Amino acid sequence: MIAPERIAGLAAEIEKRLKRSQLDIPVGVSNRHCHLTEAHFKILFGRGAEPKKVKAIKQPGFYAAEELISLQGPKGVLHKIRLVAPYRAHTQIEVAVTDAVAIGLKPPVRESGDVKGSAGAVLIGPAGKVEIKEGVIVAQRHLHFSPPEAQALGVASGEVVRVRAGTGGGRATVFEDVVVRVSDKYSLEFHVDTDEANTAGLKTGDVVHIA
Amino acid sequence: MIAPERIAGLAAEIEKRLKRSQLDIPVGVSNRHCHLTEAHFKILFGRGAEPKKVKAIKQPGFYAAEELISLQGPKGVLHKIRLVAPYRAHTQIEVAVTDAVAIGLKPPVRESGDVKGSAGAVLIGPAGKVEIKEGVIVAQRHLHFSPPEAQALGVASGEVVRVRAGTGGGRATVFEDVVVRVSDKYSLEFHVDTDEANTAGLKTGDVVHIA
Repeated sequence: MIAPERIAGLAAEIEKRLKRSQLDIPVGVSNRHCHLTEAHFKILFGRGAEPKKVKAIKQPGFYAAEELISLQGPKGVLHKIRLVAPYRAHTQIEVAVTDAVAIGLKPPVRESGDVKGSAGAVLIGPAGKVEIKEGVIVAQRHLHFSPPEAQALGVASGEVVRVRAGTGGGRATVFEDVVVRVSDKYSLEFHVDTDEANTAGLKTGDVVHIA
Repeated sequence: MIAPERIAGLAAEIEKRLKRSQLDIPVGVSNRHCHLTEAHFKILFGRGAEPKKVKAIKQPGFYAAEELISLQGPKGVLHKIRLVAPYRAHTQIEVAVTDAVAIGLKPPVRESGDVKGSAGAVLIGPAGKVEIKEGVIVAQRHLHFSPPEAQALGVASGEVVRVRAGTGGGRATVFEDVVVRVSDKYSLEFHVDTDEANTAGLKTGDVVHIA
């Protein structure tokens, strides 16, 4: 016999999972991009330059800038790496593994901000170059939630979940190792890189579900 | 009450699934490559040329050749597309979606050999160019089995299964829509393209399992 409390606990868990799985989560596909310190920006684009906004991105306060840099690795140069502003305390370049392989880099899979001991490279801008010892990462796929969204769904920051994507498109994929990140700066979105998006046939704005 | 025959049937199904999930399946990552008709080969490499073998690939009878072509799409040119020989009845170029996007092509996801109505492009070789109206595809991920392997596992050609990959590497992924292909020309292997391999942190020779 299963104890009644146990049954109640299982029922609550099933209810939570069902609720989670029903939420439509929009996809945000991240092309390769960079976040720069003010000091690195000035070297790359000139002392008098400031980031020029092209458009807001879904995460509040961030915007895609006009500025593009190139990234030089041991085997080649990757072009058109867009700046996402505003400035950050640490320079961070986010690339897909396919991008990295093309120029001979082996960046680790990391959460944004965790650049310690990551890959180095040379950043090239119209006004100058910067060699960084670390800062190149492959972004860990993750879900952004605002605190009310997270609470409604019963997910906590740092929790690891599975996301089903691409159902019915011939490349359905269940992404495991998806990290939940909760912040009042975030709004609901599943962030993947171009390798991941292409694997499941996803584009920005498509809808996925926690599995 | 569940009928005894139904229980026996379920038990047999569970046993089959357990057996399937325990088989170690090696991964074969396909970089972008091409299969050429003899006529196209001669235009691209010259009338007197023949494919030069570099190394056998795991599927019996096939080999990677020395010859490389380039592929021109509306937005650019993709280089270093290796010939996989011998000649085929239809020219077929297999690229990852990331490759295709880079040159402005939108090839469909197809099984090898199914090129009807797929994407066109211009093939460029050292001796000449060929414009093809169709032939560029993104390969449907698939499993190769020899007939005895398929029989032992209870899988049929054309069956669609799920494959779990990359467990423990921080990018675990369950690939759905994996097509089983059985032929006495095949040996056990899970074929993915570079986007798929990078999404799960896979390289050739890694081991995956039917899920």
